[in-house]
Amino acid sequence: MIRIAIDAMGGDSAPAAPVAGAAQALAEVAGDFVVQLVGQSAAIEAELARHPDLNRRRIEVVEAPDVVGMGEKPLQALRSKKQSSIAVGLGLQKTGQSDAFISAGNTGAVMAGATLMLRLYPGFERPAIGTPFPTSGEPVLVLDAGANVDCTAEELVGFAHLGVHYARDVLGRPEPAVGLLNIGEETEKGNAAAKEAHRLLTADAALRFVGNVEGRDILAGRCERGSFDVVVCDGFVGNILLKFYESIGKLVNTLVEKELPAEVLKSEGLRRIWRYLDYAQYGGAPLLGVRGVCIIGHGRSSPHAFRAAVRVAHEAASHHLVQHMSSEFQPRGVEA
Amino acid sequence: MIRIAIDAMGGDSAPAAPVAGAAQALAEVAGDFVVQLVGQSAAIEAELARHPDLNRRRIEVVEAPDVVGMGEKPLQALRSKKQSSIAVGLGLQKTGQSDAFISAGNTGAVMAGATLMLRLYPGFERPAIGTPFPTSGEPVLVLDAGANVDCTAEELVGFAHLGVHYARDVLGRPEPAVGLLNIGEETEKGNAAAKEAHRLLTADAALRFVGNVEGRDILAGRCERGSFDVVVCDGFVGNILLKFYESIGKLVNTLVEKELPAEVLKSEGLRRIWRYLDYAQYGGAPLLGVRGVCIIGHGRSSPHAFRAAVRVAHEAASHHLVQHMSSEFQPRGVEA
Repeated sequence: MIRIAIDAMGGDSAPAAPVAGAAQALAEVAGDFVVQLVGQSAAIEAELARHPDLNRRRIEVVEAPDVVGMGEKPLQALRSKKQSSIAVGLGLQKTGQSDAFISAGNTGAVMAGATLMLRLYPGFERPAIGTPFPTSGEPVLVLDAGANVDCTAEELVGFAHLGVHYARDVLGRPEPAVGLLNIGEETEKGNAAAKEAHRLLTADAALRFVGNVEGRDILAGRCERGSFDVVVCDGFVGNILLKFYESIGKLVNTLVEKELPAEVLKSEGLRRIWRYLDYAQYGGAPLLGVRGVCIIGHGRSSPHAFRAAVRVAHEAASHHLVQHMSSEFQPRGVEA
Repeated sequence: MIRIAIDAMGGDSAPAAPVAGAAQALAEVAGDFVVQLVGQSAAIEAELARHPDLNRRRIEVVEAPDVVGMGEKPLQALRSKKQSSIAVGLGLQKTGQSDAFISAGNTGAVMAGATLMLRLYPGFERPAIGTPFPTSGEPVLVLDAGANVDCTAEELVGFAHLGVHYARDVLGRPEPAVGLLNIGEETEKGNAAAKEAHRLLTADAALRFVGNVEGRDILAGRCERGSFDVVVCDGFVGNILLKFYESIGKLVNTLVEKELPAEVLKSEGLRRIWRYLDYAQYGGAPLLGVRGVCIIGHGRSSPHAFRAAVRVAHEAASHHLVQHMSSEFQPRGVEA
């Protein structure tokens, strides 16, 4: 039985949205799993009362009296609030009582907490944030989306390996291909780290590397040398790209509301377009490199986004992502 | 009388698109100017014959027998093709016979040609490419969009000064505000260059600096501390962002064609949306840092895009952009 912990106090609409998302997930996501709602029990129970049809045997409420605010300094908050929903939720996984943790709370605190409590695989100094971008075909995982700035070429190669495992186990790609985000398709293009990463990725026999991928290729999911499942980049570029992408939906929305007639605004077709462009439907951003399953949701996550995150967490846990990564990323000199 | 040279051989639809764009500009852009069409005279004349209403006294055809291909290596092409439309067009400006040059040809060759023939202002090692991004208000100039990777903090400050001059003289902003593209609004965020650039930009009394701008702020044209006219970033980030932006129109287009009814696809409202999102309407990308006016168009530039570029070139020349920049960017120790 897979156990998925949700930070019930995380996100702008907590605890209503995480609890409603858990209810949606239990009703709609296939699989044998339970949800652990972590946070202030009284508030969680009050929300659960709004979902009377829930099978309470599939829900566990785990008390965590402290709440880390969205604007708090991550390390300071974790130190002063030992019983926060973030610390308690990750603690369940650390002690073998849970298989995954989902939070739409303070991203920095979740990252710091996961790093301290779950630890990182050998060779990583910080976790990487993966983000699924929609494409005309299947979504593509872009990493790092903001945890690592000033990346070395070796770090970019590390991201490639993390992304390949995730694409295989969670996105269901049997032989994931990797692209390197760059400013041109030619080998000699890019900044110093990208040039060196191109060399290392090409030489890495364990990777299916398609070469440089340009900004325009991401949403197509393919470049001239083929399609790709994973795109690696420095967290500085990845974060700017991700936030820029988020803002486009808003701009297009404003334009559409201004320029198109009311009946189109209400149409099912337009709703499908929004759904497609909304990357929340792809289930949040996995924190990769930590020895565990940890999914970060947007602060504004809807119940729908939490449901998608549960689906992703379930895929990761049931396909043994952590075991696979543990056997690849070992201390140097140690054989499996 | 302002003289605007157009590379009639540059771009995927040359010479038809540049010639048609020149015709549109002469008919629709206000101002006292002539257009110099640079390229193979016979081909240009054949295209001009399609525009019988043109006032030929406002058009000069300048012979340039060589053509630089889109895929050619820039420096090699410039060396072997001394009489290319790029070299001849820039040569007119160098010798005082023209005030601006517009090309949708090989970007690298235009950049290299402009650097070699027009030269750079003191303190710059390469030109920067500015790109106007649409916002819900007025467009914002983002630079560098790809000419400079691995930028130092000092280079980013240089871009800010270039951008401010351009925003004032060409975009008509009396007191242009500058933002630094970064991964968070807090001062301490970012990679090493961004952190140092934040310090230098804050200390620069000649700039109106609004602080860090995130990916999501660009299309809004404002961050929490106010609106901005210019956004500076490393050319690596800028290029990826620009190409990503280009690709979004394509994705949205595919979705709209699939999901919305035919009468909406033909509606004037949808046409207005496309026009808004199409940054070609903002007139191409100025090459900044060179001692002259040089506008780079997209390889797929339409006549409409050439017309917009002429408008921009006319603004730059009539508002004395080059004189203003020359008086700011002087060799050290020399006073105006």
